[in-house]
Amino acid sequence: MTNHQYKLIARPQGEPKRSDFEFSEAPVPNPGEGEMLVRIAYISLDPAMRGWMNEGKSYIPPVGLGEVMRAGTVGEVIASNNAKFAVGDQVLGMMGVQEYALSDGKGVTKVDANIAPLPVYLGTLGMPGMTAYFGLLEVAQAKEGDTVVVSGAAGAVGQVVGQIARIKGCRVVGIAGGADKCRYVVDELGFDACIDYKNDDLKTGLKQHCPKGVDVYFDNVGGDILDTVLTRLAMHARIAICGAISQYNATSAVKGPSNYLSLLVNRARMQGFVVFDYADRYMEAATQMAGWMAQGKLKTREDIVEGIETFPETLLKLFHGENTGKLVLKV
Amino acid sequence: MTNHQYKLIARPQGEPKRSDFEFSEAPVPNPGEGEMLVRIAYISLDPAMRGWMNEGKSYIPPVGLGEVMRAGTVGEVIASNNAKFAVGDQVLGMMGVQEYALSDGKGVTKVDANIAPLPVYLGTLGMPGMTAYFGLLEVAQAKEGDTVVVSGAAGAVGQVVGQIARIKGCRVVGIAGGADKCRYVVDELGFDACIDYKNDDLKTGLKQHCPKGVDVYFDNVGGDILDTVLTRLAMHARIAICGAISQYNATSAVKGPSNYLSLLVNRARMQGFVVFDYADRYMEAATQMAGWMAQGKLKTREDIVEGIETFPETLLKLFHGENTGKLVLKV
Repeated sequence: MTNHQYKLIARPQGEPKRSDFEFSEAPVPNPGEGEMLVRIAYISLDPAMRGWMNEGKSYIPPVGLGEVMRAGTVGEVIASNNAKFAVGDQVLGMMGVQEYALSDGKGVTKVDANIAPLPVYLGTLGMPGMTAYFGLLEVAQAKEGDTVVVSGAAGAVGQVVGQIARIKGCRVVGIAGGADKCRYVVDELGFDACIDYKNDDLKTGLKQHCPKGVDVYFDNVGGDILDTVLTRLAMHARIAICGAISQYNATSAVKGPSNYLSLLVNRARMQGFVVFDYADRYMEAATQMAGWMAQGKLKTREDIVEGIETFPETLLKLFHGENTGKLVLKV
Repeated sequence: MTNHQYKLIARPQGEPKRSDFEFSEAPVPNPGEGEMLVRIAYISLDPAMRGWMNEGKSYIPPVGLGEVMRAGTVGEVIASNNAKFAVGDQVLGMMGVQEYALSDGKGVTKVDANIAPLPVYLGTLGMPGMTAYFGLLEVAQAKEGDTVVVSGAAGAVGQVVGQIARIKGCRVVGIAGGADKCRYVVDELGFDACIDYKNDDLKTGLKQHCPKGVDVYFDNVGGDILDTVLTRLAMHARIAICGAISQYNATSAVKGPSNYLSLLVNRARMQGFVVFDYADRYMEAATQMAGWMAQGKLKTREDIVEGIETFPETLLKLFHGENTGKLVLKV
């Protein structure tokens, strides 16, 4: 049996290119003492992966050159010398962009495909869902009656942020690129409104849909959108900085929010967070969200692309805004 | 008797110029029912005044064209039809850039020149002192053992921030322009260190003097200094946005902090505030600070310039970094 893998072999300048990776073949290894072999079924594609490709200090170490590209994955145990995992178990973990992975079980969790299809464990019941839950409720402290704005509204995190905010009794306004995405979050997910920043004027849209200002802004994109939302803050607004996808491939300096003094005028705060800090509460969030899913209050969409060989190009869909819902690679 | 007044007659573009004001004479008015007449002794010059000259929404309404320029003042009551104030009382209030002011007593407080010289009520025992106290302790939540960095360290707010932080058991590093200011805050005020951003490399200085990173940054200046401090944050750092004097005269877009994603990596927050929100606690802070002053733990310096007629040029000392301590105009 052969294991196809994508290894990072160069630090990308700007958008990652196929030549930044090596698509290689290796024999499928045998699990050693305490190890198991997992056949990966789905690979998560996340904006954060772009940051992991860069050298230098961040919230986790960069992927080393020559290493298999780090990625969240779900798959099935096909051989095991680990007492905690049996052949046939379905498992979730950071097992990388490859077809087969050895694991000692650390950081790997069993999942139940009867509760949700496997790709959902990479999205709403996985890192993006946890990010939405803790970012909205803990970092931004969203509460009933707040006007919540979320960018990247039709993305893996944004779709969950908006729905949790609705469940909590907030008014929810999405920002997304294109009429289809806006229709999706309003018609299918129940957002109160969505502003199509590619075709409509964002500032006008915010005035119209957030007449009392923005109490909570959950920012996935940074750049001009963050800067414009800053001009529409309500008093004591909270901005959760989840990411800045518009800036991840910047080859010059990141665009800083030039309207940041709105924080002063509105006694507002802007706070960054990393979901891993809430690891000891993932169970709480996952239980809550699985319950909401079972009740039909929390819907989820995955954008599934087939073929591990398409990895470099499929990843770019994120940065071009071409995915609706959680982007997943089917092996 | 004649009252000399500075009225705002144009919205400044960039730095305020003499031609943005009218220096006019008017007869000194007589106090009406419930009013008093105050002879102003000292006029406070504050960076915030630049913002009050601009049109548009902010935390208080702009000064109207043709109105006496708003300013904090201390003076003496020389005639009174107000039961709460008697002739001879020394009072503090926003009475404007003029020699005499009528007041109905609203927002005016009696002060005691035996506790501190009158100009101190415009500085450490006034708005700048309150700003330092609440910004450091409430907004930034500075606590024992924190490394606290403050920009504009030798200014009216900065000098107080650093000394309160020392009193609370923090390590304090100032940022100021020029060797004299740095010597002042280290040798006279007891800061642990001060970085002269005009002559030394700020990033190198921060590495040297904040080896564990910056837990609290109290920002008075914005611009490149804010951006550089962002690169040296400790985990869970708190940035209090007090002002951005480097940007107040900008004629193009304000420079946003392009390193703001450091907030994400370090789970840090940046929070704006306006001191007026703490008005119901000014007594607490003033009592505390007067006590520290009496114990010799909190020193204060005023930079006193004589002559109301110099107002437009003296105000610019703030934006050119030419004052050490609280800038005050002596009438």
